[in-house]
Amino acid sequence: MAGKKVLIVYAHQEPRSLNGSLKDVAVAELSQQGCTVTVSDLYAMNFEPRATGKDITGTLSNPGFFNYGVETHKAYEKRSLSSDIIEEQKKLQEADLVIFQFPLYWFSVPAVLKGWMDRVLCQGFAFDFPGSYDDGFLKGKLAILSLTTGGTASMFSKTGVNGDFRYFLWPLQHGTLHFCGFKVLAPQISFGPEMASEEERKRMVASWAQRLKTIWEEEPIPCSPPWYFGQ
Amino acid sequence: MAGKKVLIVYAHQEPRSLNGSLKDVAVAELSQQGCTVTVSDLYAMNFEPRATGKDITGTLSNPGFFNYGVETHKAYEKRSLSSDIIEEQKKLQEADLVIFQFPLYWFSVPAVLKGWMDRVLCQGFAFDFPGSYDDGFLKGKLAILSLTTGGTASMFSKTGVNGDFRYFLWPLQHGTLHFCGFKVLAPQISFGPEMASEEERKRMVASWAQRLKTIWEEEPIPCSPPWYFGQ
Repeated sequence: MAGKKVLIVYAHQEPRSLNGSLKDVAVAELSQQGCTVTVSDLYAMNFEPRATGKDITGTLSNPGFFNYGVETHKAYEKRSLSSDIIEEQKKLQEADLVIFQFPLYWFSVPAVLKGWMDRVLCQGFAFDFPGSYDDGFLKGKLAILSLTTGGTASMFSKTGVNGDFRYFLWPLQHGTLHFCGFKVLAPQISFGPEMASEEERKRMVASWAQRLKTIWEEEPIPCSPPWYFGQ
Repeated sequence: MAGKKVLIVYAHQEPRSLNGSLKDVAVAELSQQGCTVTVSDLYAMNFEPRATGKDITGTLSNPGFFNYGVETHKAYEKRSLSSDIIEEQKKLQEADLVIFQFPLYWFSVPAVLKGWMDRVLCQGFAFDFPGSYDDGFLKGKLAILSLTTGGTASMFSKTGVNGDFRYFLWPLQHGTLHFCGFKVLAPQISFGPEMASEEERKRMVASWAQRLKTIWEEEPIPCSPPWYFGQ
């Protein structure tokens, strides 16, 4: 939708991968709609995933006992977080929609993207107490996970070996995105591209592009246990 | 139990934290039993979490199209993975029991520990097709998650804001550990230490030490959906 701002947080090493194509087609389609699209290409940025004292510039509030959550919360208030975190927080603050594009690693995001979540979504910026879930500080924003899997859709069904795909989405969609106030749109899951034909992979990309045409009209999912674990 | 080998994969920045104390007491108790205990202190090692081409020494099998899973699988077979991965695989191969000691970050492990999982548990070493779940290559080993949370036990109950704690364990215990063949022992969860008194924190450490005295007699959990999502 013209005028909207979109941030794509992208975690794949290979530009020509299916993840790369899904990211590219999203940039193209959303730009064509008149959106401003920003991409954080985490591997290309060599984004730091480790949560350490280097994330706080200047002096620590308690140098003798390092507490990452406490120190980054204070550093956020004092504007003394490291510049790479501040940069991502700015992009996030401006975004109306955030798309996370990644391959599923161990039923979750790759470590480089987990590090983005651990470091960027700090207390004071993304949430506080009070100020979580429906009152999270990123409320009013939309988020969507667009991911590829190694397994097929049937492997990620209730009776499949990997269990329902909704099970592994809980920590990401509820525990992270909803926690920070995001409204979560239904995930875009491209199942098993490595086992698919070139034709099928093209259809995965086309179907994502097609969905993005009307993404702004979508209703968020109800992000609570029945969606994930219900019958 | 005398003669057993234990690997503790530890992810906390502060030695004097509760996580540090839980790790220390495990080293002490298990050593006292006559076990050989090895600790991978991920922050102290500045362990690399990012899955990149640097994990493969020598030439890539397809330099024009980087596929991390394919390349690391081949590098494992050719013994050309990077030395930090090989080192962790050796520790893991020798271990009878692996303890993961970490604070819960976004309903999951900190990125530095996610990176250990992403990089160390590669195809060919930890699993293959066939060779997953009950046939995973790490079968015969035990694993246990020992973690601390920000929220209280009631917040992590079925009716709490965070949902049942078993929900967030699915990707880690089933999707990762069980996938690689581990038998999973019940998690050791120290809820909300930052909101607890010093006395209560001491009890958390003592109760972990106490449990470790008979850890070798424990039955693994049944690592399937009913344990996680059942009534």
